Amino acid sequence: MFEALPKSVTVYEVGPRDGLQNEANLVPTEDKIAFVNALAKTGLSRIEITSFVSPKWIPQLADARELAESVDRVDGVHMSALVPNRRGLDNAIAAGVKDVAVFISASETHNKRNVNKTIADTLRAFEDVVRPAQDAGLSVRAYVSAVFGCPYEGDVDPSRVLDLCQTLLGTGVYEISLGDTIGVANPLQVESVLNLLTASIDKDKLAVHFHDTQGTALANCVAALAAGIHIVDSSVGGLGGCPYAPGASGNLATEDLVAMLHGMGIETGIDLDALVECSRMAASFVGHDLPSKYLKAHIGKQARSRRTKERAQSNSQ
Amino acid sequence: MFEALPKSVTVYEVGPRDGLQNEANLVPTEDKIAFVNALAKTGLSRIEITSFVSPKWIPQLADARELAESVDRVDGVHMSALVPNRRGLDNAIAAGVKDVAVFISASETHNKRNVNKTIADTLRAFEDVVRPAQDAGLSVRAYVSAVFGCPYEGDVDPSRVLDLCQTLLGTGVYEISLGDTIGVANPLQVESVLNLLTASIDKDKLAVHFHDTQGTALANCVAALAAGIHIVDSSVGGLGGCPYAPGASGNLATEDLVAMLHGMGIETGIDLDALVECSRMAASFVGHDLPSKYLKAHIGKQARSRRTKERAQSNSQ
Repeated sequence: MFEALPKSVTVYEVGPRDGLQNEANLVPTEDKIAFVNALAKTGLSRIEITSFVSPKWIPQLADARELAESVDRVDGVHMSALVPNRRGLDNAIAAGVKDVAVFISASETHNKRNVNKTIADTLRAFEDVVRPAQDAGLSVRAYVSAVFGCPYEGDVDPSRVLDLCQTLLGTGVYEISLGDTIGVANPLQVESVLNLLTASIDKDKLAVHFHDTQGTALANCVAALAAGIHIVDSSVGGLGGCPYAPGASGNLATEDLVAMLHGMGIETGIDLDALVECSRMAASFVGHDLPSKYLKAHIGKQARSRRTKERAQSNSQ
Repeated sequence: MFEALPKSVTVYEVGPRDGLQNEANLVPTEDKIAFVNALAKTGLSRIEITSFVSPKWIPQLADARELAESVDRVDGVHMSALVPNRRGLDNAIAAGVKDVAVFISASETHNKRNVNKTIADTLRAFEDVVRPAQDAGLSVRAYVSAVFGCPYEGDVDPSRVLDLCQTLLGTGVYEISLGDTIGVANPLQVESVLNLLTASIDKDKLAVHFHDTQGTALANCVAALAAGIHIVDSSVGGLGGCPYAPGASGNLATEDLVAMLHGMGIETGIDLDALVECSRMAASFVGHDLPSKYLKAHIGKQARSRRTKERAQSNSQ
């Protein structure tokens, strides 16, 4: 089953953006800066640090410009930002951002609810963003959401996803992240959708973005890896899905992904221990536990090791 | 990758035994009886209800006999119990149990720490249990733990696992459950170990039992299903891994497994809604949230639907 497994995987970290935008309590900008700077030292090569949306939409990310201007630039680390429109792009450029991302849904109803436009109008609006961004020397990624199911329409036709992806690549985006926005995909479906897409689209241009709403994110990643995909979005700690909010739709935790990949002998270039420290930092400033299982296991192991040491010391006294 | 996927999967529910034995607070016997009776009505065909161990080892299961004698017998539902030795077997038989399970580790050190015997001595001790159980008309399952890694020895040689499985099948056990006791397996390893085992052992005689310590249990299940395995152990709610205990080693949640299987078009015969109600019942009597993600998503969906109805009602008043 694993003949097409990639030798290495690029992890696209979305914690500071997709993670934090779902946090109810405002995180101080200085904490975000320290967080992004710590992430940039883990070996991650791509980090989405914020979104240049209206503060009215997402107050948590109202500090996009200050954050983007303040974080350390690290060689080999691409720091991207989401831009919903031309104004967002202009602000991102003004803040020195070199990589941006646009977003659209594969479901007409979901797109309408999300950006109050049809899919066709959203694609037209991208003309104001994608080409100008490229003309300004930026690279543009596209997120397609609701690829594996829509909260309003239910099933989403994979052939519509294919059409949309081809149209998007035609606009000049360098990569498309296929989102299971509500976490309803299953591994068999992932294989089937990816087989359809990769029959006519280069695997190097596709990333997967699974949400862990029903606990299937890693299982879906395995199906995607087996289909030859080698770019995976995730959020450190699983940030974005609060374990105490009923029904919270969590992101896949980066450390859970990276631990599994390393176990499978797949390289990521990421220092797992350093990543876990970023996760603990995030848990501390958002003020609650994060859903990552690897993180919990790691904390437990450290606690046991500390108790063992303390017992040994008290015995030797 | 999914050519060998089974059309149906038998879920072996271990919540009342493997789940509850890890709960610190004693659960009243009447709650356990109601729990097992509810599980038996979900469509599950195999439920491990308790363990006939010494109450000194596991006080939580000191009521094994009363429980086994009190639960409703349901046609088509096999209710098994773990038996560590001949005395346990005799007590299980006296309580009317028809299916029992023995356990051994693939790692010498882990086996020694667990039952204070070598693997060879444990196999010899099985002579007092397996054949007499069969002579009394019972069927015997075997658990092999630490198949994919040992907390003391680290790597476990798959060829030793194969030898042990063949020896166990020679003693007359009808099935072997391959346990990832500490939750360190990865999907590539699962495929590799299962390919080795199924080259000489009938797939129908092998079950998988993954712990979700690092969040990989479902991903490992997918690899096992792809290798043609169709019996999977799980624990309703993920019972047995407390989300508030640092480093708790959780069981795979039955509803997470069943939801994924149904999504993949694989039959289980289980009513997912009824299963979720069992999970809520368990959360209520153990007194804390359970780790199942499907359960959390389900509770969230119900809460949102209730709020929507309330708003509609208050608008119409």
